[in-house]
Amino acid sequence: MKLRELGEDRLLAQLFPDLPRTKSVLIGAGDDCALVKFRTAANFLVLKTDCVVERVHFSSRTSALDVGWKAMMRPLSDFAAMSAVPEFALVTLIVPGTRSTSWVRQLYRGLKRAAARFNVAIVGGETSSTPGPAAIAVTIAGFVEKKRRVLRSGGKAGDDLFVTGRLGGALRQKHLRFIPRIEESRWLTKNFHIHAMIDVSDGLGADLPRLARASKVGFEIERARLPLSPGCKIDNATSDGEDYELLFAISPRESKRLEKSWGKKFPKLQLTRIGKLDQPSPIDYHPLPGGYVHFQ
Amino acid sequence: MKLRELGEDRLLAQLFPDLPRTKSVLIGAGDDCALVKFRTAANFLVLKTDCVVERVHFSSRTSALDVGWKAMMRPLSDFAAMSAVPEFALVTLIVPGTRSTSWVRQLYRGLKRAAARFNVAIVGGETSSTPGPAAIAVTIAGFVEKKRRVLRSGGKAGDDLFVTGRLGGALRQKHLRFIPRIEESRWLTKNFHIHAMIDVSDGLGADLPRLARASKVGFEIERARLPLSPGCKIDNATSDGEDYELLFAISPRESKRLEKSWGKKFPKLQLTRIGKLDQPSPIDYHPLPGGYVHFQ
Repeated sequence: MKLRELGEDRLLAQLFPDLPRTKSVLIGAGDDCALVKFRTAANFLVLKTDCVVERVHFSSRTSALDVGWKAMMRPLSDFAAMSAVPEFALVTLIVPGTRSTSWVRQLYRGLKRAAARFNVAIVGGETSSTPGPAAIAVTIAGFVEKKRRVLRSGGKAGDDLFVTGRLGGALRQKHLRFIPRIEESRWLTKNFHIHAMIDVSDGLGADLPRLARASKVGFEIERARLPLSPGCKIDNATSDGEDYELLFAISPRESKRLEKSWGKKFPKLQLTRIGKLDQPSPIDYHPLPGGYVHFQ
Repeated sequence: MKLRELGEDRLLAQLFPDLPRTKSVLIGAGDDCALVKFRTAANFLVLKTDCVVERVHFSSRTSALDVGWKAMMRPLSDFAAMSAVPEFALVTLIVPGTRSTSWVRQLYRGLKRAAARFNVAIVGGETSSTPGPAAIAVTIAGFVEKKRRVLRSGGKAGDDLFVTGRLGGALRQKHLRFIPRIEESRWLTKNFHIHAMIDVSDGLGADLPRLARASKVGFEIERARLPLSPGCKIDNATSDGEDYELLFAISPRESKRLEKSWGKKFPKLQLTRIGKLDQPSPIDYHPLPGGYVHFQ
């Protein structure tokens, strides 16, 4: 069977259960980031790697500055999903020998600008030539306080579901210019009990089921409430992907206070209650259209 | 100018000086691994990323098991160079959707087997499709005790230079099956003062000048002493690359004791004094032929 017939989620589901683990691993592959114990440190070490590939995540005409920005910000968005603080970045640059050095310099300008935005140090940079398209892999290391880490799996039936910003239409421009919701995420876990969180990168239709599956619950969305980007329909909000917004579950007892203080703290960024987690339903488990599925 | 005209070392030399840094960074890009402070931990956090690319580091006919092994072991060899202990690995797999799932499973078998060899947990696995050749990037996180970290830059004029194993001819088979010298490196720093160390991955002719440059010294090699792999000549030893042996500098006062105890501890692995570090010479800085230079 070919990869594109199986799909990314199912492939990873087959590969991950028997990966080598040690006692230091709290969360391994499968959540937004890995959470591990590091020696005598009181905080968890948080690790995440991600990549962008030419002709998959960006086109050959995309400005190298934007490519660098996106390559750095994607794993930082996963840090936001865990309420983790990024500190160090490693860059692997796979690029044809025929590419101009100015392209690489512009790419690094984008990487550096994005890293500086969150006070992240770039501490490693490998390069390799390739006979194919360019690819950039970025790994982030950082920390989260034990009490503030948020997983995909903590959602409870009855929780309210919130999403930041607006969904859909990101491929027009936002996917190259987005700012991961790290500040918002840190504020959320400082002031509220967030039960479960994920960053919406493959579309609500793919990422909400992931959160629900990890939490072993179902969900119910009020479609009319979905915060749509200008010119977008519900299908765009659930399927376009690349929104890099936060989706999280919180007790309805905290919702009122959350909505009130959010508006004061982040007056320019919308926060919308889009539905609830509920008991898992065997019949109607995927009531949302697709979301972006890799290899298809 | 195109990348292949500039070469990897010069490109990186241009990019690295103004990478964003923070107070936590002891060693950033440019040595074998990054060394950083992590929160309240007494040990340094060590970080390294590396990649292998189809048709550059392996051919389309190479067994996926071997490719996985090599992809994991390359950054582990950099850990050996710093006398660091690897703990966690993250894998980024960039692979065409047309590739068979059994190829990916075999690749993961190789990755897992290599990680298990050094008790490393695989804590993250991203995948992306690509219209080009497959590429696998692996990031390793681990630790080193403050007193035992070894850099490229600690070499002193007068130091003896030692190399483990034999050099040359690795492309015949060894490059897919090598075992990083982590055990040897840990034993070295437990029992001796190692001034500077590097893993020989691009050939002695490329890696020895790197160590000397970082230490701001020159070097002198006794060519007749170079430990050659069977069927190899001196040019192979300096230029073939992919040896993944350790090259290190140590005070001549410790050399005798080192040679004696090495033979007892590692009777099957050769250790050879191949020359000395000396005062830098402006005239004869590169007396060794090339070594593998990327992008050429």
